[in-house]
Amino acid sequence: MADLTLTTFNWVPEPPRGLVRDLRVRWALEEAALPYRVASTPFDDRGPAHLAHQPFGQVPWLTDGDISIFETGAILLHLGERSNKLMPTNPRGRTEATKWVFAALNSVEMASLPWTMSKFMGHPTDTAAWKFVDDFLKLRLGRLEPVLGSREWLAGSFSVADILMADVLRVVDRFGGLADSPACRAYVARATARPAFAKAHADQIAHFAAADKARGA
Amino acid sequence: MADLTLTTFNWVPEPPRGLVRDLRVRWALEEAALPYRVASTPFDDRGPAHLAHQPFGQVPWLTDGDISIFETGAILLHLGERSNKLMPTNPRGRTEATKWVFAALNSVEMASLPWTMSKFMGHPTDTAAWKFVDDFLKLRLGRLEPVLGSREWLAGSFSVADILMADVLRVVDRFGGLADSPACRAYVARATARPAFAKAHADQIAHFAAADKARGA
Repeated sequence: MADLTLTTFNWVPEPPRGLVRDLRVRWALEEAALPYRVASTPFDDRGPAHLAHQPFGQVPWLTDGDISIFETGAILLHLGERSNKLMPTNPRGRTEATKWVFAALNSVEMASLPWTMSKFMGHPTDTAAWKFVDDFLKLRLGRLEPVLGSREWLAGSFSVADILMADVLRVVDRFGGLADSPACRAYVARATARPAFAKAHADQIAHFAAADKARGA
Repeated sequence: MADLTLTTFNWVPEPPRGLVRDLRVRWALEEAALPYRVASTPFDDRGPAHLAHQPFGQVPWLTDGDISIFETGAILLHLGERSNKLMPTNPRGRTEATKWVFAALNSVEMASLPWTMSKFMGHPTDTAAWKFVDDFLKLRLGRLEPVLGSREWLAGSFSVADILMADVLRVVDRFGGLADSPACRAYVARATARPAFAKAHADQIAHFAAADKARGA
């Protein structure tokens, strides 16, 4: 088996901890029980060595032997080909999971990111721009609600699509954005109750906390 | 060969014509020279028959035999498995194309969509919210510029990743957002100079223009 290495920042400030996207990859690796190691890249200096793996200066990236992959969607599809715990094995099921991978990122996160970033930044909510952002998210959640009310997981069985969708929705939930979407809220609750999520989340928190100690030393 | 059918709206208002996302799928189908037909779904009534294929009430979707796929990213990856004109054939090249498919949508369009929608809606540009949106796009374009300055196409040869990236960037270009990104602008120019783009664009315009006549009749 090739050597899987997940690279994330060596440290991040307090607010994004628990939200850094290496969590999605950790979660998938834990679900699949694939062996991996975690490497660090400097948060304060995103130089050529970083950009060679992740041209936008972000994290995470994953190396699988001599292949290097960035974008959590691409990484999770790659891991989905390595474990039937992450993707259905039949072609129809794989197509189903793939379309929901894109839907999580492009139909839902495309609408939720401007919303959660505005909340995070404390932008005023009495503007036309905010109303547009808020209406856009509500429109998408309104469409998602009956989908998540009618099935346990998006593609028949638990898959990488659920890792992405649940990770997108739990940030909205944190800011109270799922108040009118009980099926979405229940879905976040059942996804994040999985032991692999708990392990991934705790490992990310511990990774950055250990860096605090190193900085303080 | 299975029967490929692309479904788009039967009609849309004037402003989004040339921008409706069936264009991405038409472009890929034209590049690959795969036979396909175009079907229509009512713009004014997005009922259960629509939502069964596209749960968010959008277009396009593609049926390939009895498989139905929504999300242009998922559709283009699916078509990439059917034609070596759309994806490299070696595993490394396929991984490269897949990560740039996600990067086009999630690293670039995630930043460009709030920007282009604000322009489209005419939101004020003297707000903290606008500055955040504008800075976010500039950050991403700044990272993309050296990538597109150093290669003709994203994944070695022309691929579905280029269809998505060029389609995302040409909308930014339309609103003048690539003024400080000459390599991005040159990339949009060489991608949209391809005959398959021209055919796809003309076909979309003609499709909606024909619907105008039917409405007027």
